[in-house]
Amino acid sequence: MGRQLFELCGTDPLRVLRPFCWRSSMALAHKNLDLASLPWRFTGTDRLAFAGHEKVPVLVDGERVVADFWAIMQRLDVAYPDAPSLVRGNPAPYRFVASWNDHVVQAGIARLVASDTPPLLDETERAYLVESRENRFGKKLEEVTGAREARLPTFRQSLQPLRALLADQASTGRDSPDYADFIIFGSFMWPLGVSPLKLLAAVAPILAWRERLLGCHPAHARNAPCFGA
Amino acid sequence: MGRQLFELCGTDPLRVLRPFCWRSSMALAHKNLDLASLPWRFTGTDRLAFAGHEKVPVLVDGERVVADFWAIMQRLDVAYPDAPSLVRGNPAPYRFVASWNDHVVQAGIARLVASDTPPLLDETERAYLVESRENRFGKKLEEVTGAREARLPTFRQSLQPLRALLADQASTGRDSPDYADFIIFGSFMWPLGVSPLKLLAAVAPILAWRERLLGCHPAHARNAPCFGA
Repeated sequence: MGRQLFELCGTDPLRVLRPFCWRSSMALAHKNLDLASLPWRFTGTDRLAFAGHEKVPVLVDGERVVADFWAIMQRLDVAYPDAPSLVRGNPAPYRFVASWNDHVVQAGIARLVASDTPPLLDETERAYLVESRENRFGKKLEEVTGAREARLPTFRQSLQPLRALLADQASTGRDSPDYADFIIFGSFMWPLGVSPLKLLAAVAPILAWRERLLGCHPAHARNAPCFGA
Repeated sequence: MGRQLFELCGTDPLRVLRPFCWRSSMALAHKNLDLASLPWRFTGTDRLAFAGHEKVPVLVDGERVVADFWAIMQRLDVAYPDAPSLVRGNPAPYRFVASWNDHVVQAGIARLVASDTPPLLDETERAYLVESRENRFGKKLEEVTGAREARLPTFRQSLQPLRALLADQASTGRDSPDYADFIIFGSFMWPLGVSPLKLLAAVAPILAWRERLLGCHPAHARNAPCFGA
């Protein structure tokens, strides 16, 4: 029994849509661990019943089943201590990075590209996603992402803490990427896969950082279908 | 020769004005190290010539002179390894916390309270500060902080990554504070000392966290003159 990661995909199984899945797949790649990606879709909750969990990512590593991106990271650092660490030392400041990412980067991106995902889904999936997201936002997805070109500068401004850091060092992990990088990177892989909007075109250090991360495990991220920039 | 920390003060030497100084004094307190605070003021550059540095904080620890808040933190963790660590493991994510703090918290606070500092300074200092800050902002300080009550909700919203984290854990360092906490705490000590504006009145978990930090080294932070809330 090998190593398998359930990941949320569009109709194209290479189009991984959930940032949390990217965190885990990049973590596995960082550990030099092979994985088989098992495409999972919004309406496939039953398929995860064996894990006692309703959402991906779910990792099956031999006999072990681990759900949730944070637990997967911890499992990998414990089970594979000789491979490069994901979290070096106290995990607490990595949780701050995740909180910033979720409330600023991820929330900001959702308001810019939420309407781009449904066309990449099968009919049943599309109906589920549109309804659940329109309930969450309280409006049509096309309204959520309306006038988005005009809102891009504000979004880019919100990235200033990361931009300033990456002007001084190659990655959030400093000389080499670590889990802080993968947390943020995951949020940029979703729009890259679904949206023609050029989120980072004017944000040089972040764009270059994302390119480096795309390149560091080419078989995984580089081959994902994407729009670019 | 004891341990001395040069800190930027108002006319009242207990009113420490620079967030970077608070980072260092809290770091010393965290290490259970006594210090003599040496009040320093904007126009006192000559007094720091011995350190080869133009700005506070400057720490004199026996024979060693260390300038810059980051270098002071590193020095303390190396020189006093048996005392509680300031940075536990990889310092890189702490740099992210500092970047977020500087670009969001500190920059936001400056636009809310910059005009409150000058009245707490002697005439020479006041003239220096007003000129340098008005040059930086490109406008009068009273314009910088204009309509600030109306801008408070936006500032508080920008604290959401910290607020969400502190809803789940006692401090940024998780169960006990570490340097990530002191970095952010320093930025709140400046407005607390100079401004009647209630920055955190509606931000329960952050207000409670600041109170805990104020209380954990009472001889230092708790005795500083402040406006409260």
